Amino acid sequence: MAAYHPLSEREAIGIAREVEGVFPPNARLTCREIGDGNLNLVFHVRDETSGRGLILKQALPYAKVVGESWPLTLDRSRIESEALIEEGRLAPGLVPKVYRYEPDLALTVMEDLSDHIIMRAGLMQCRRYPLFADHISTFLANTLFFTSDLGMNQQEKKLKAGRFINPELCKITEDLIFDDPYTVSPNNHYDPAIEDEAEALRTDAELHFEVALLREKFLTQGQALLHGDLHTGSIFVREDSTKVIDPEFAYYGPMGFDVGAVIANLLLNYAGQLHWSADGASRTSYREYLLETVKSIWTQFDRKFRAHWEEKNVDRVARETPGYRDDYMRRLLQDSIGYAGCKMVRRIVGLAHVADIDRIPDPAVREKAQRVALRIGKALIKGGRGAESIDFVIETAREAAAALEG
Amino acid sequence: MAAYHPLSEREAIGIAREVEGVFPPNARLTCREIGDGNLNLVFHVRDETSGRGLILKQALPYAKVVGESWPLTLDRSRIESEALIEEGRLAPGLVPKVYRYEPDLALTVMEDLSDHIIMRAGLMQCRRYPLFADHISTFLANTLFFTSDLGMNQQEKKLKAGRFINPELCKITEDLIFDDPYTVSPNNHYDPAIEDEAEALRTDAELHFEVALLREKFLTQGQALLHGDLHTGSIFVREDSTKVIDPEFAYYGPMGFDVGAVIANLLLNYAGQLHWSADGASRTSYREYLLETVKSIWTQFDRKFRAHWEEKNVDRVARETPGYRDDYMRRLLQDSIGYAGCKMVRRIVGLAHVADIDRIPDPAVREKAQRVALRIGKALIKGGRGAESIDFVIETAREAAAALEG
Repeated sequence: MAAYHPLSEREAIGIAREVEGVFPPNARLTCREIGDGNLNLVFHVRDETSGRGLILKQALPYAKVVGESWPLTLDRSRIESEALIEEGRLAPGLVPKVYRYEPDLALTVMEDLSDHIIMRAGLMQCRRYPLFADHISTFLANTLFFTSDLGMNQQEKKLKAGRFINPELCKITEDLIFDDPYTVSPNNHYDPAIEDEAEALRTDAELHFEVALLREKFLTQGQALLHGDLHTGSIFVREDSTKVIDPEFAYYGPMGFDVGAVIANLLLNYAGQLHWSADGASRTSYREYLLETVKSIWTQFDRKFRAHWEEKNVDRVARETPGYRDDYMRRLLQDSIGYAGCKMVRRIVGLAHVADIDRIPDPAVREKAQRVALRIGKALIKGGRGAESIDFVIETAREAAAALEG
Repeated sequence: MAAYHPLSEREAIGIAREVEGVFPPNARLTCREIGDGNLNLVFHVRDETSGRGLILKQALPYAKVVGESWPLTLDRSRIESEALIEEGRLAPGLVPKVYRYEPDLALTVMEDLSDHIIMRAGLMQCRRYPLFADHISTFLANTLFFTSDLGMNQQEKKLKAGRFINPELCKITEDLIFDDPYTVSPNNHYDPAIEDEAEALRTDAELHFEVALLREKFLTQGQALLHGDLHTGSIFVREDSTKVIDPEFAYYGPMGFDVGAVIANLLLNYAGQLHWSADGASRTSYREYLLETVKSIWTQFDRKFRAHWEEKNVDRVARETPGYRDDYMRRLLQDSIGYAGCKMVRRIVGLAHVADIDRIPDPAVREKAQRVALRIGKALIKGGRGAESIDFVIETAREAAAALEG
């Protein structure tokens, strides 16, 4: 295979054609580059006749974010491809199939998911995904348990952790999520209307303390192989299917970071429903759906993880120590809540925002949604370590909406 | 350099002679293999005339422990040599100088410390080392702080952690310290006289819970580059000098594990003073010296680590978050106490014992010393998470001696 260079669409077609068992011989393939151009090229190669397709994802050696260009290692392509394969093994059907990985080109050839939509877009259309909580809780329970010291050989786990050392992408998280939002940083941006909130974030000592503890765990706690960026833009959905994509931030970290990411993004959409719902009644109904989903994700995750603990635990000490499992799950819930809060806050005042809120056209409604999101986020960060149940999250979300929307 | 084979004394002399600037030309070198034959060959090459010497330490591809033979990676030799170099850089003068490392032979050529003695032997002779607390607290504060996210670039830290992934030697610790002593294991051995204590260790749910938490941190918390086996048999001393040796267990783990190891081994000697002290008065005096040393080690470590935090901290969040440093130091103290307890317990009922206690000839005295050590160890494990000061350790040691020695 050739030395690294950004592929042309013609080259993408040539590579796609070589994958066996996808396209009929002599198929007339078309190609479209559909990436957002930020970090990767994404080629969608299709045969109109058979309706079959492939995705070719190629890492670019830099990141373009708000005009700035950051150099970024191509090794993230290896990490993404190896993480996808690992996740597919542990949670079959919940990630796209990987057909091929070309290290020299930093290229992964994978299943075409054009019949799915990005979950964030679905939520902005107030669609419901009745199987999502089941699917994502399986994804989380399986990938986290079976890459941890509980579910795999502990010596192999250390070697696996070594293959997922991911300094550059972790650094992005460490800065953008756990540092910038709480200080003056050129990476931050937010609506001038919430300058008071941004200022409050910079001066809230209690908040800073909790964020420092969560950041410390992110930096040091190699608990399990994380997806590392599990927001609703990294999840493709249909009513009957869920596919987690883009694990280029994968590394060994605290399990709660992945669980919290899913919760946070459902709650960001909850805040945005001020706009997306057609009227008050449908808003109430859709928000209930979102909160039920949050609760169901945790409840099912907790049940599945505990079942693995009972049935598949390789660790004698974990298996046989009275009270340890309950304590572990309590800490995991608390971490998840804290990380959910961090992920909400940064999406309002930090570098990368979410469409659920940024695309609200009415500035007054958008401002209110931002304040609701921040109120939830801060409460989750501050309350995480004391939380005993997922109900704390549900109540916090309800309280914030009630307090700010009147 | 040749392929791996255990060196002969003649070969060791040949290699030593090549090291520049140590021996005079044409020196008549002698060689003695002084290792205990467990894990390594240790050659002491000497020139009687100049009095100069070198140590050549070669890893063996197996471990002989109580007759059994475990295969062991030679990569531990690389880890040991790289850790020594790192520790020497961060704590100059407190580890032997490394002259040469030969990866193919798993061989490290280092400074001869024949003018020092193993600290455990010194303590068994009731000798005092007035500079030890200062030296070892500097070693701990420097090596732990400057290999952590507080003291070095956080991306480089992740890469460094990758170079110190040490599955096999970590596994030894995980089993022998955190698992075997609390269950029925063929690795355990202990005097039949303390069968009641061994049985109590196997059925103490509160103890098991605390050990599970400490074990979890050992398995997951990549806080700093640890020595990993910092007992008083890994420390060479003179009245005016301290040299830490044998970091083959080095890996990225929880800082408290190293601090706790030092404390535990001083307290094991404390328990053994029932025998080693000449009489009651000298025992009281020497034990006070040991407890003062424990207190001084923590106090100086705490002061030096905090000073680094103020002056050398690379982490904005850690630097600027009110209350974070105090919380960090409190948790570090608590971890240190918990790990000290684990290390005491395993030295009484587990695979590897300590001469401070095992070499007590009178069975009744030895039994009492073992009970004192276990009482302290269990109390430290159970009390660690609630401890607010190093005084808890001092009081626990005094209480145990008073309760059991009458």
